[in-house]
Amino acid sequence: MNIIDIINKKREKQELSKEEIEYAINGYLDGSIKDYQMSSLLMAIAINNMTERETFDLTDVMLNSGDKLDLSSIDGIIVDKHSTGGVGDKVTLVIAPILASLGIKIAKMSGRGLGHTGGTIDKLESIGGFNTNLTIDEFIKQVNEINIAIVSQTGNLVPADKKLYALRDVTGTVESIPLIASSIMSKKLASGSDIIVIDVKVGNGALVKDIESAKKLANLMCKIGENNGKIVICLLTNMNEPLGYAIGNSLEVLESIETLNGNGPQDLLEIVMTICELIISPIKQISVDEARTLIFNTINNGNAYNKFKELVKYQGGNIDDIKISDKHYSIRSNKDGYINHIDTYKLGNICRMIGAGRLELTDKIAYEVGIVLSKKVGDHVNVNDELLKIFINEKQVDINEILDCFDIDTNLIEKEPLIYEIIK
Amino acid sequence: MNIIDIINKKREKQELSKEEIEYAINGYLDGSIKDYQMSSLLMAIAINNMTERETFDLTDVMLNSGDKLDLSSIDGIIVDKHSTGGVGDKVTLVIAPILASLGIKIAKMSGRGLGHTGGTIDKLESIGGFNTNLTIDEFIKQVNEINIAIVSQTGNLVPADKKLYALRDVTGTVESIPLIASSIMSKKLASGSDIIVIDVKVGNGALVKDIESAKKLANLMCKIGENNGKIVICLLTNMNEPLGYAIGNSLEVLESIETLNGNGPQDLLEIVMTICELIISPIKQISVDEARTLIFNTINNGNAYNKFKELVKYQGGNIDDIKISDKHYSIRSNKDGYINHIDTYKLGNICRMIGAGRLELTDKIAYEVGIVLSKKVGDHVNVNDELLKIFINEKQVDINEILDCFDIDTNLIEKEPLIYEIIK
Repeated sequence: MNIIDIINKKREKQELSKEEIEYAINGYLDGSIKDYQMSSLLMAIAINNMTERETFDLTDVMLNSGDKLDLSSIDGIIVDKHSTGGVGDKVTLVIAPILASLGIKIAKMSGRGLGHTGGTIDKLESIGGFNTNLTIDEFIKQVNEINIAIVSQTGNLVPADKKLYALRDVTGTVESIPLIASSIMSKKLASGSDIIVIDVKVGNGALVKDIESAKKLANLMCKIGENNGKIVICLLTNMNEPLGYAIGNSLEVLESIETLNGNGPQDLLEIVMTICELIISPIKQISVDEARTLIFNTINNGNAYNKFKELVKYQGGNIDDIKISDKHYSIRSNKDGYINHIDTYKLGNICRMIGAGRLELTDKIAYEVGIVLSKKVGDHVNVNDELLKIFINEKQVDINEILDCFDIDTNLIEKEPLIYEIIK
Repeated sequence: MNIIDIINKKREKQELSKEEIEYAINGYLDGSIKDYQMSSLLMAIAINNMTERETFDLTDVMLNSGDKLDLSSIDGIIVDKHSTGGVGDKVTLVIAPILASLGIKIAKMSGRGLGHTGGTIDKLESIGGFNTNLTIDEFIKQVNEINIAIVSQTGNLVPADKKLYALRDVTGTVESIPLIASSIMSKKLASGSDIIVIDVKVGNGALVKDIESAKKLANLMCKIGENNGKIVICLLTNMNEPLGYAIGNSLEVLESIETLNGNGPQDLLEIVMTICELIISPIKQISVDEARTLIFNTINNGNAYNKFKELVKYQGGNIDDIKISDKHYSIRSNKDGYINHIDTYKLGNICRMIGAGRLELTDKIAYEVGIVLSKKVGDHVNVNDELLKIFINEKQVDINEILDCFDIDTNLIEKEPLIYEIIK
C-alpha cells in the first residue's frame, strides 16, 4: 500500500477500503505521510465525496487514533452541544451556563475557528486568563463541582482530528460532508457524553450551503451516533446572516453576556430556547412549556449569568478583562432600501482577514477585532445610516468590500425561517 | 486576494482569473504559499479541470516565472521532442542521436521520472558520470559543435514548473490535462526550439488513459504553440503495454543502444521511424520514403550510435559504466494462453516501488533496478515460460502482484494500433 495510489484512487472517484483509510490517517499521524499529501487526499475527498461506509470507517479510525474519555465518574446525564460552524455563532456560550444552572452536566470539548467561522475556544480565550487546557482529572472534577467545564481538545483525544482540522482550515478543504461528519462525530464519541445536540448551520455563511446537504450531514451524524449507542439530535438552522449582531471573539463574548442577562438578540435567543427545551424536556421529563419557564427563570433570576461567571473564574479567567479594539469605524449605507441579503461568508472572511481568524496554521488570533452589525436582513436603511461598526487593529480593510456584502433593494423579500428542521 | 479563496473557488468548479493564477503560482514560488496549499489546489484542478483560457494563462504565468532560452546563436532549425510519459518509453534516447547524426539540431531540456513513468534525465544519469547540469553557454556550444545536447531544466527556466512537477509527483496530481499541457508547453516555449514534436501516450500505462482526453491534450498543446508562434506536432501512441522490453533506467539505456545499433524492438522502432520522418521530411524537403532511407542508413552505417557515444562523452559520461543489478529473477507464467493485456500502470508502479522512481520529493533513484519483459501483448506462453526478468536491490517484491499485471487467456484478442493519430 502507498499513499499515492490511495490519493489516485479517490481522485478517480473510487471507494477506499477501511485498511486504506487507516493507512492514510495513521501514516499522517506518525509523519510518514506529509501535509502536502494529506491535503491532496482531503481535496479529492471534498470534491469526490465518500460513501456512508467510508465515512463510518473514517470516523472509527479517527476515534481510535487516541484515548476515549471515561466520564463515568460524573453523576447524571451528560450533554454535549456542537455547531457545524457559522458566523457570529455564540450559542454554546449561552446555552452551556443556562443548562448547567439547571443542574445538567456540561462536559464540553470545543474547537477553534475553522475557515471563515469562529470557534468557542478562541472566543473563551479572549477573556483574559481563561485556560482551556485542563487535565482530564481537572475537567471531571470541575464538572462534578459546578456542572460545567469547556476545554479544548486534549492531546490524547482524537489526535488525528486535531491535525486534520488544522490542515483543512488552511487548504480549502473545510466544506465536505464526510470530513465534517467524521470530524464532529469522532470528537463527540471520544468525549463521552450521553446526549449530543448538533446545530447544523445552513446557508451562505455556513460550511454547508444548502438544505439538502445539511439533511445528508444530519442523517449521517445521527446514524454514526446510533451505530455507537448515542442519542444525536440535529437542528438545521439558518446561516444566511450572522447570528445576533456581533462577529469576532471578544465582541461575541460580550453579546453572550448580554443574552445571559436577558438582553439578547431575537434570533440568538430563539435558537438558544429551542436547543435548551430539546434537552431539558426529556431529561427532566417535563413539557416543553414547563422547560421554557425554567429557562426564562434561570435567566431572569441571574442564575445563568452567575454560572457563566463561575465557569470563567474556575478556569482562571477574569470576566472584567475582555478587550475590544479602541479603533472602530462606522460603515454607512450608500443606498436607501431594505437589506435583503447579507453575504455572510464574505463578512466572516473579512473578520478572518482583519485577525479574528487564521490564514495559516501558526497564525495568532487578534481577539479584540471584529464587526458589530447595526442592521440585519429585513431591516430598512436610509443613505448614511450605520450598517455596522468595524473594530480593527493595524490591519487594513476595504470599505467597498464590506458594502458589497449587503444587498439593499426597494422591495422587501420575505425572510427565510430561522430553524428549518429538527432531525433525531 | 488569498490562497484559500482561490482554492475554494476551484473546488467549487469556478473559473480562476489570470490574476488569481499569477497570485497562486508566484506565491508558491516565493514560499508564501505552502506545499500543502498548492497540492490542494492542484488536486482541485486535477478533478475540476481548467478552461482553455485558464490553461493558456497558467502556461503563460509559468513561462514568465523565469528566463527564456535564446537559441538564436545556433544555426539551423532546432527540434525538440517530448513525451507525456509512459512505461519503458526511451524514444528520446534513440531519435535524438539519429536526428543529430543527420545534421538536425537537438537542443533538448528533459525531465525526471513523474508518477509511475520514467524520465530521460534519470535514464541518462544512470550512465556513470553523465552530467545533465550544463550552463546555458555550455549547452549552446555543445549543440553548435556536435548538433546535440540533453540537459535537465536549469534553475532559471520555468522555475514554477520545476517546483510544481516535483510536488505533483508525490501528491497524486500528475494525471490532469491542463496541468500536463501547461507543464510541457511552458518548458517547450521557454527552451527556444522551432519545431516541437510531442508523443502523447495513451492507455493504462500513460498519464492519459483514453483517446478522447489525449486528443484534447494534443489540440490544447497545438493551440498553445500556435498562440506563441511555434510549430507543434502531436502523435497519439499506444501505452497499453510498455514500449520495447526494458523498464528502468540503466536497462532502458541498454535497449536504446541496441536500437541505435539496428537491433531494437519492433514497436519502439516504429515510433522512432515515424517521429524522425515527421521531422526530417519537411526540414530537408524530401519525401517520407527518402527520409526513411536516410534514417536506415544512419543506423546501419553506425553514425547514429556514434552520435550517441559522442553525446555521452561530451557530457562527461562513460558509456562502459552502465550498471544493472546482479540480483535478478525470472518470473514465470502460471497459465497457458495468449497475453491479452498488461497492466502497464501497475508494472510501472512496481518498478517505482523497487527504486526506479520516486515516492517522495527527496528519494534517490536506484538506476540498476527494473524489469525486462520476455513476452509482450499478443504473445503465447505456456506454464513456466518466462514472462519477465526483474532486477532488484535490497527492496522486496511480491511475485503475485507482478503476475496480476498479466491477463492470459485461451483466445487471442486483436491488438490495438501502435500509432492512433497525428495532430498538427
